[in-house]
Parts: sequence; C-alpha cells; structure tokens
Amino acid sequence: MATVTDYINRNKERFKDELFEFLRIPSISTSKEHKDDIRRAASFLVGKLESIDLDRVKLFETDGNPIVFAELMTDPEAATVLVYGHYDVQPPEPLDQWDSSPFEPSIRNGDIYARGSSDDKGQSYTHVKALESYLKSDEDFPVNIKFILEGEEEIGSPHLVPFIEEHQDILECDMVLISDTAMFAEDTPSLTYGLRGLAYMEMQVMGPNRDLHSGVYGGAVDNPANVIAEIIAKLKAENGVIKIPGFYDNVTALSKEDRKAYEELPFDEEAYKEDLGLDALHGEEGYTTLERASARPTLDVNGLWSGYQEEGAKTVLPAEAGAKVSMRLVPDQDPKRIAQLFKDYINTIAPDTVEVTVTEHHGGNPAITDLTFYGLKAAADAFEAVYGQEPLFAREGGSIPIVADFQRVLDAQSVLMGFGLDSDAIHSPNEKFALKDFYRGIKTSAKFFEQLTDYSG
Amino acid sequence: MATVTDYINRNKERFKDELFEFLRIPSISTSKEHKDDIRRAASFLVGKLESIDLDRVKLFETDGNPIVFAELMTDPEAATVLVYGHYDVQPPEPLDQWDSSPFEPSIRNGDIYARGSSDDKGQSYTHVKALESYLKSDEDFPVNIKFILEGEEEIGSPHLVPFIEEHQDILECDMVLISDTAMFAEDTPSLTYGLRGLAYMEMQVMGPNRDLHSGVYGGAVDNPANVIAEIIAKLKAENGVIKIPGFYDNVTALSKEDRKAYEELPFDEEAYKEDLGLDALHGEEGYTTLERASARPTLDVNGLWSGYQEEGAKTVLPAEAGAKVSMRLVPDQDPKRIAQLFKDYINTIAPDTVEVTVTEHHGGNPAITDLTFYGLKAAADAFEAVYGQEPLFAREGGSIPIVADFQRVLDAQSVLMGFGLDSDAIHSPNEKFALKDFYRGIKTSAKFFEQLTDYSG
Repeated sequence: MATVTDYINRNKERFKDELFEFLRIPSISTSKEHKDDIRRAASFLVGKLESIDLDRVKLFETDGNPIVFAELMTDPEAATVLVYGHYDVQPPEPLDQWDSSPFEPSIRNGDIYARGSSDDKGQSYTHVKALESYLKSDEDFPVNIKFILEGEEEIGSPHLVPFIEEHQDILECDMVLISDTAMFAEDTPSLTYGLRGLAYMEMQVMGPNRDLHSGVYGGAVDNPANVIAEIIAKLKAENGVIKIPGFYDNVTALSKEDRKAYEELPFDEEAYKEDLGLDALHGEEGYTTLERASARPTLDVNGLWSGYQEEGAKTVLPAEAGAKVSMRLVPDQDPKRIAQLFKDYINTIAPDTVEVTVTEHHGGNPAITDLTFYGLKAAADAFEAVYGQEPLFAREGGSIPIVADFQRVLDAQSVLMGFGLDSDAIHSPNEKFALKDFYRGIKTSAKFFEQLTDYSG
Repeated sequence: MATVTDYINRNKERFKDELFEFLRIPSISTSKEHKDDIRRAASFLVGKLESIDLDRVKLFETDGNPIVFAELMTDPEAATVLVYGHYDVQPPEPLDQWDSSPFEPSIRNGDIYARGSSDDKGQSYTHVKALESYLKSDEDFPVNIKFILEGEEEIGSPHLVPFIEEHQDILECDMVLISDTAMFAEDTPSLTYGLRGLAYMEMQVMGPNRDLHSGVYGGAVDNPANVIAEIIAKLKAENGVIKIPGFYDNVTALSKEDRKAYEELPFDEEAYKEDLGLDALHGEEGYTTLERASARPTLDVNGLWSGYQEEGAKTVLPAEAGAKVSMRLVPDQDPKRIAQLFKDYINTIAPDTVEVTVTEHHGGNPAITDLTFYGLKAAADAFEAVYGQEPLFAREGGSIPIVADFQRVLDAQSVLMGFGLDSDAIHSPNEKFALKDFYRGIKTSAKFFEQLTDYSG
C-alpha cells in the first residue's frame, strides 16, 4: 500500500520544480504594473488544484485581484478545514541588495532564495501538495477541505473581507489553517496563537508652492523636511512609549501567565543582536524584547522622503516631505480608532506654517486563538510527529488581519502552522525558505489532517 | 560713430540665440555623467571669447572641471576688473515639474525658461557680450578686464581656490565683478554687499544589517528612520534657534545701522507669502523676515530618505536612513568650525542603538563688501543710467563662497551686480531669467566699465 509519506518522498523533486515555477512569477500586488503576473500566479494555482480530483475549483473575480477557491467534501460528519494563503508578494526593492535574482529561485546552503519563497508561496503551497499526496496515495483523505488563496495580502486584503462576507455559505468551516508565520527557531516548531494588528498611515507635509533655494529663503520659510522630522519625533518618547493620546486605552495588559509563557520561550538576546548586527536594542520601557516584538503595540516609520536624495549637494529648501508610518496593534486595539487618533494628534502638533495631510492605508485587527482549541492540539501532534519535538506556543509580532476577520465572519478560529523562520528576510532582499521545511511542511500538513480525526468526528 | 549701445541694440537677436545655444548644454556638475557637457560648455565660452580680439584666452585644466580664463589689458594705469561667473548648472530634477524642457530654452511672458538661465549662464554671459559690444564699436574700452569662468560652482568650487592661489599673478585685479545674485524686485536694481556662508553636511543612520519586517521586529529594534527624525528635531528649537552648542559664538550681531538699512528696504510680507503660497512664515525669534533670510544663520534639511517611498504600503523597518543638512552662515562664522560643531553635536545626541556617520560636503565663508568701495559707486551709477533708478544696497541669503576667497587671496572686493530675481526659481523647476534683464544686464555691464573711469585712473 502506497502511503502519503511514500508519495511525498517520491515526488520531492517535482514539488520543488513546481514551487520554483510559482516563484518565477513576479506577482507583486503593491504595483499596478504587475496585474498580468498576479493573474498568472492565480492561474498557476487553479491549474495545480484542477490537476487533483477536487469537487470544485474556481477563480472568483473581485474588483481587485482574483481569489482562488477549491473544495473537497469527503464526509459531512468530519471536520472542515479552510486553508488560507496568498499568492501575491512584496516588491523586491532594493534590487541591488539581492545576491541572486528575486524571481529566479536559487538554492544555497539548503535554502530557496526568492521573493515569496517564505511569504507566502512556499509555505501555502505545502497544503496543496499535502492534499495531492493524500489523494494520489492509497490512504483516504480524512476531513473536508477548502482553499481560499488571495492575491492582495501584501496590500491589506481590501477585497477579501467583502468576499468572505458575501460567500459565508461556501466558506463555512470548523477552522482556518494558515501557514504564513515563522517557527520560533530552526528545527523548533511553534504554533502562533496571537497576532498583532496594523494601522498604516501616510503623511504629507506641504510648505511653499515650489522647491526654493535654501540660501535665498532659508531661515524665513519653514522647511517641510524639518517639520516632518519634528512631527515624527513627537510620536514616541525616548523610553519607547507612543505619545498619541488615547493610544493605549484598549490595550489588554499582559497577565502574569502571559509573561511567564514568554519567560519560558528559549531566547538568546545576544544571538538575536548578533544576527541583526546590532550593539544595542531599544523598545518600550518595562518590557522584554520578545514582549516588545509581539505583545506590545508599536510605531515605526516605514518610509521617509524629501528634497534631494542623489549624490552630491543641492541647496534646496524642499516644497514637501512625506512619510509612511505604521503602528502594530494588540488586543483590543481597533485599527480604525487608532488611525483616527493618529490623525487627530498630527493635526494637533502640526505647525500652521505648513499643510499636513494624513491618509490611511490598510489596517487590520489583532487576534488571539484559544490555547485549548482542538485544532491547535492536532497541529501540535503533527509537528511533534514530523519534527520530533513538541511545538512552542507563541505570539507573533506580525499582522494577518484576516485571522480576526475569519473569527468574526465565519466564527472560525485559526491554526497558524508556520514553517518559516524569522531570519527568512521576508519583505527584505534575499528572502529565503529552507527546502527541508518545504518538505517537512507538506508532511506536517498531511499529518495534521490525520490527527484532526483524533479530536473530532 | 557707432556707440556701444547701438551695437547692443543691433545684435540683440544674435545675443539671445547665443545664450540659447549655451543653455542647451546640460552642464550639470553634481553628476559625473555630464563630464562631456561640462567640457562643451567651457568650449562654448572659449569660442565666444576667442571671437573677440582679446590678449589671451585659455582653458585651464584642473583635477575637476576646466576653468576658462581670458584677459584684455588696455592701459596699465586703468582699473582692472576680474569678471567671475560659472558655466555649470544645478540638476533639473524633479523633471515632471517643468512646464518646458530644462535644456531647451523657451520664452514665455518675456522670460527665458531653462536651467541656468538665471544661475548663472544668462547673468554671466552679459559681461562677455558687453565686452564684445565695446570692442566692436567705435568706443575705446576704458579699463582692463579679465575673465575667470568656472564649472564647479554648484558643487562648491573645489578647484577654484587652489587655482586662484596658484595663479595670483595673472588674476591680479582691483575688484571682482560677479552677476550671480538677484535684484531686490522687478525693475528694482540692487547691489548685494553681504553674502552668507555655507556648511553642507550629510548624515547616515545605520541600524540593523538588513531591512526588517516591521511586524516581526517592530518595537524591539530601534528604527533608523525614527532616529534620524529625532536627531533632526534636536537641531533647532521651536523658536527657530539652532541648538548646536557654540553655533552662534562668532556671529556678528546686527548693528542699529544694519537693522535700519533693512527697515528701509521696500518689502511686502503679504506679497512674499502669496508668491510662496504660504499662510504663515517661520524663523528665528526676534528677527524680521528679511533679516532671517540674509543676515542670520540658519539650518535646513535639503534631503531626507529612508525605507519605502513608492506607491502603497510596505511594512519595512528600514536598515538605514540619510539626510542632507546645510547651514547658512554669517560673518564671522567659519564653515570648518561649524561643520565640526555639527559633527560633535550629532555624536552627542545620537543613541547607541544605531551607528551615525556625518560627512562634510562643500562649505564657504560669508562675506561683506565695504559700502564706501568705489566699485560699488560705479555700479550704482551704471544701474541708475540703465534702469532709471538708484539701486538698493542689500545683503543676500545665498552663498558665493568665492567672494570671501577673492578677498583673502587677491585682496579684491567684489561688486555683486545681480540682474536676476528671487522669483527666478534657480535650483527649482521652471528656472527663468527675464529677457529684458539679459539685455539691460549687457548695457549695465558696459556702463559700469565706463563709470569706473570716473572713480579711478
């Protein structure tokens, strides 16, 4: 009898080749230039899902990028798992910092280097291959499964929530399975039970109606580049506390149990600093590095620009300056409310010598999964079976806003089964994903479906 | 008998065509890509000077861009005027804000639109054409003249001072004539007797060894973009006072006479604001707008950059941030000392969570010309003869560091006979120069040479 594991082992090379084909598509959602590539990536997934014997595979059009849906209902009594992933990727810039082309996957030291290798093509594709392996083996697939794979995660999933609201019937499920997070460390599987939310803002400071000569006007006219720096400096105190009035109002304080769980996580601060090339860390007073990076809200400038940025010296007093500023949120902060508080505060502190406009990019709610949820237990068993050790339970600093939306709309908790590593450099040059974790991911996914039957149906 | 004025009037069209030819050469000195254009601009001047009957025309090579020299010695007893100008121009960026191509001159409403039209090709070329007009007319040229036209003014003239130090013998003169400043207002000629100096710095803030995901690391790692904003915010107090310790040590306070002269200048603050599209001005407490813009030192951010600057939202914690910051200086501030104070202060305020490096671009000394100098009187007479009114005497906010160097090396005061306007948008998109002031400039230059004989020899 051919087992699922046999099938996976026999098809490793092909699975890798398919992933490489997927990674070669520059499906960048932040730029309108890549509309065709987005569609190619969606078609790739449709093709692969159609090649397995599913009940239904469909490409749903939205006002933005299409959503890939697929389902296989084996037993109405069995648990139904909704697999969520995204086929869009971050822009690869700055290109000159990549050691190999971002859209031509290359294996070095066992790692697949490519944009999207970890976030999220490589991770989400494990479940497609796990399902294929079940269906092509002699083992029966033990649960019901649905796929929802979107192409707008990196721009805040603007059309996904309307989609799940509209299609609650076909998306009905007992849990959502997502692989878009990181393991705690190499060979140290972990299940993420908390995620931060996000409010992402853009600020434009406009001064004189044209760029001015800094000699002729300097001293008499307020400078938007100086002003934006002064505004940004007023957003955070030196002790890392965010100064926006009301910002902390709805923050759930860390309980003694939370802080104890954090203390139990194996964390080597010196190794962390060394990996980042830093002599010193910095964050909110009164919290540890791990707490700061995942359980506390924060504020970061993501982009900043004004005036002359090229080689040499230009004596310009710039007409305008801009910044992208995002805030990571924790339960029970509301991104809409935080965005409004941000705007209000900027309006309060902006001088009357310039015009400041604040706009809102995507946001997302923070989320927490109940530690007693049976899906988490099945996932823990699967990790232990494949990785040979029990996973850690951790909160993560990143945002997957859709987790909160699945909870709200479908009343489904999420199992965040990450196969990546924090060192994968997602959103940075030289993004990577360990080839061995691509394979272990497929096996863990398959094992998870099997283990679910122990806890349900 | 054919007078100088006749000749100028008869040759207006050709003078304009020649200037257009000069303006078409993109002789941008801040970028190495334009080395050939720099040489073409220098050759253009050599050709035009050779076409007049001078004693000597020579292209001097330097380690940078070449210096054009020419001379005509008519009478050892007469005054010798050294005309200084520059044939290099500022970069034209941002290109999308030009209404016509920066290097294809276009006349609209009587103004020549082109990069360099005012700064300084159009202004400096008036003296070449004034000399030609004298030599081709039946009038005798009444003084001795030398030209020194350089191609590195916009990058701080790194090779000019060594050149004048080495060639003091051939540059010996009674005064320096420079047209690289602005009139006080349209049809309101003015003689600039004071200029600010400059210290231009660049700052780089380096944090983690790579761009990080702001979700994964945000809150635990100091953000170079936030840090650079905090550093910049500490450079100036809200009342416009610069906070660098020692910065004001050598500033000569404005005398009662100085402030009275400023009060007498016709200045319409409402019109000034309207021209700039500003509701409110801002500057150092205790000084008027004109004083702030020309007689007081200041500090401006000229460029600022970090992280993601494109469309949309990228959740990056940037690895580094940079800024260009320049300070305008007044007598007797020393740019080298100010640069050192800036570096020392940055090192004091920079947190230990990042690495900050500060480098120095070009600097320049401030300068003042004695109001009783006979060259100024001759220039005032020439302005009155051509413009029909006495010029104002004003200090200007910009920097022409070479003025201080001519004083020091050649013991020569400068006559700053500007034909431009503050609204010429030099260093900005849509730089312009009034065609009528190009012609009046040629006539004023010619008249100046004539008037000099009233005061000298």
